[in-house]
Amino acid sequence: MSDSITIALDAMGGDHAPGMVLRGADIALERFPTAKFHVFGDRVRIAPLLAKLPRLAPAITLHHTDEAIPGDAKPSVALRTGRRSSMRLAIDAVADGRADGVVSAGNTGAMMAMAKFALKTLPGIDRPAIATLFPTRRGDSVMLDLGANVECDAENLVQFALMGDVFARTVLGLAQPTVGLLNVGSEDLKGNDAVRAAAARLRGGMTPIRFYGFIEGDDIAAGTVDVIVTDGFTGNVTLKAVEGVAKLFSESLRASFRYSLSARIGYLFARGALKKLAARLDPRRYNGAMFLGLAGIAVKSHGSTDAFGFANAIGVAVDLKVNGFQQKISDELARLNTGAVPAAPAAGVATLLR
Amino acid sequence: MSDSITIALDAMGGDHAPGMVLRGADIALERFPTAKFHVFGDRVRIAPLLAKLPRLAPAITLHHTDEAIPGDAKPSVALRTGRRSSMRLAIDAVADGRADGVVSAGNTGAMMAMAKFALKTLPGIDRPAIATLFPTRRGDSVMLDLGANVECDAENLVQFALMGDVFARTVLGLAQPTVGLLNVGSEDLKGNDAVRAAAARLRGGMTPIRFYGFIEGDDIAAGTVDVIVTDGFTGNVTLKAVEGVAKLFSESLRASFRYSLSARIGYLFARGALKKLAARLDPRRYNGAMFLGLAGIAVKSHGSTDAFGFANAIGVAVDLKVNGFQQKISDELARLNTGAVPAAPAAGVATLLR
Repeated sequence: MSDSITIALDAMGGDHAPGMVLRGADIALERFPTAKFHVFGDRVRIAPLLAKLPRLAPAITLHHTDEAIPGDAKPSVALRTGRRSSMRLAIDAVADGRADGVVSAGNTGAMMAMAKFALKTLPGIDRPAIATLFPTRRGDSVMLDLGANVECDAENLVQFALMGDVFARTVLGLAQPTVGLLNVGSEDLKGNDAVRAAAARLRGGMTPIRFYGFIEGDDIAAGTVDVIVTDGFTGNVTLKAVEGVAKLFSESLRASFRYSLSARIGYLFARGALKKLAARLDPRRYNGAMFLGLAGIAVKSHGSTDAFGFANAIGVAVDLKVNGFQQKISDELARLNTGAVPAAPAAGVATLLR
Repeated sequence: MSDSITIALDAMGGDHAPGMVLRGADIALERFPTAKFHVFGDRVRIAPLLAKLPRLAPAITLHHTDEAIPGDAKPSVALRTGRRSSMRLAIDAVADGRADGVVSAGNTGAMMAMAKFALKTLPGIDRPAIATLFPTRRGDSVMLDLGANVECDAENLVQFALMGDVFARTVLGLAQPTVGLLNVGSEDLKGNDAVRAAAARLRGGMTPIRFYGFIEGDDIAAGTVDVIVTDGFTGNVTLKAVEGVAKLFSESLRASFRYSLSARIGYLFARGALKKLAARLDPRRYNGAMFLGLAGIAVKSHGSTDAFGFANAIGVAVDLKVNGFQQKISDELARLNTGAVPAAPAAGVATLLR
């Protein structure tokens, strides 16, 4: 496992599994030629696909199971009955050290429940969060939580801020990332109790975070901050709303270029520039939501993605590993836990951040 | 007031007031040639502007005040100290029957506080909501609340659904509008207590609403439902996030067309079709957030809008009046209050909807 990176793949998760998963791994091999994969799923369906991917086959260890988690399974049911499922076995491979990270395009709730159970949360983190990169005017920002925690208190939000901050410093390579808390206005008095209390703590300077303050919805695309912190309800709805609008915009634009002969000719001339734009905003480039706060790397791909998007989700898992995110977040939590306030060495990070 | 419509205008609210307000009223006169305006603000600044708008001058009654609500005033302070402000006097004109509606581009929180105080909420409505139209794949949808109520319980959400439903039937002219509740998933068990309890009541059939069920963020732009119901925190963040992304998209597209000579030529050919698209998605067309649930018409314009956008906000107030929204929502509330459950004639709508 040392130099080469090993990723566990749930071959049966996602609308176009297992073909999309295997072709995605094949594409990922171009970026990470020394990567290895543990692939979990139905041998009968996987073997013929592998036969067509000669580059991939030697990088793979195939583990057969004929169980898979349905897309509509309740997380609690999946956790209880899915112990032999492709998703669970892939997660277990991370838990017992055989893989550096797991990627699945299956049921998000089931994956979070299983990952929490099998990998455990990091000491000092009450609840893991789902995070993603987001294209902005200034580059990429990271946003969390995107739905793991529908209701969040101030403590959860502060922990999300800490995880986002470490992510931005390690994986995005920013020396001093700025962190903003999503709210309905920028004034101190705006918002609900949770965001106000979280802001007060983050302003208090007990954390190493460079806290920008409250941000509003339009600050997301503007790239006002590097890390956008919000509760899972708001984050989930906002991210999906934005994806929906981006899709509508793209479709409308395509329709415009078919509108008249003149517009079609215009498209031919502008095609090069438009393709550059489309590539930059391609949602597949941003595929791969990270489960942060777990004692192991877990990445959730969109269920409807294609092989190119799945390869990016694998890339996210590799980036987290290569940049040592898990070690750095653990160090940061331990430092806050023991070093920051010597008078209370036994207090958890939760208490210190209050 | 009978046939002609009279709108009260806060001439001093908004980044470009009072010029933008007056030019906006002038543009609105093209659409509504018999409209009259009560204009509240600083005579010294307004009079010279009116001199340049010969069509508008005869349609206006100017009411001088040298007080205005600052953009950053706290709602409670504005309510207490702003009794002679241009915004408050314009609202009062609706309260005492001199105007059919009020439009302001000033401080949203102050306007809501003053409008609640001076106009009162309708019987059966606990809290007014802010609503706006939204362009979707299928046409326009209406979305509420957009920030009047940062924390909402199930009862508030049910009342928003009712107001949105009546709005869609009267102003949008839909016979059987569909109403959806914004959530993190479409399954019954998803979400927080408030959305689950609200959905249970709406499914119960105690209201005339055609309840679609839960919708997710991407359903907004898809136009899955005619009425999108959510709490003010989620609605505010989502709407602003979507506006921010739309702006980024437009800017990126413009930059693409400047990218190369070929792209510039392409733009010349496609310009006609692109301008049609830009006109359809023009945010100024959707300017004018309605305060629903008050005993009077109040419309809030974006503070940064121009005269064209402000004219649209005036148009929203006129549409509400022309379509008899206030009467119909009152009738609907009274009907639910007295007719729906004869066994409990004295119960408020709040109880009946439970």
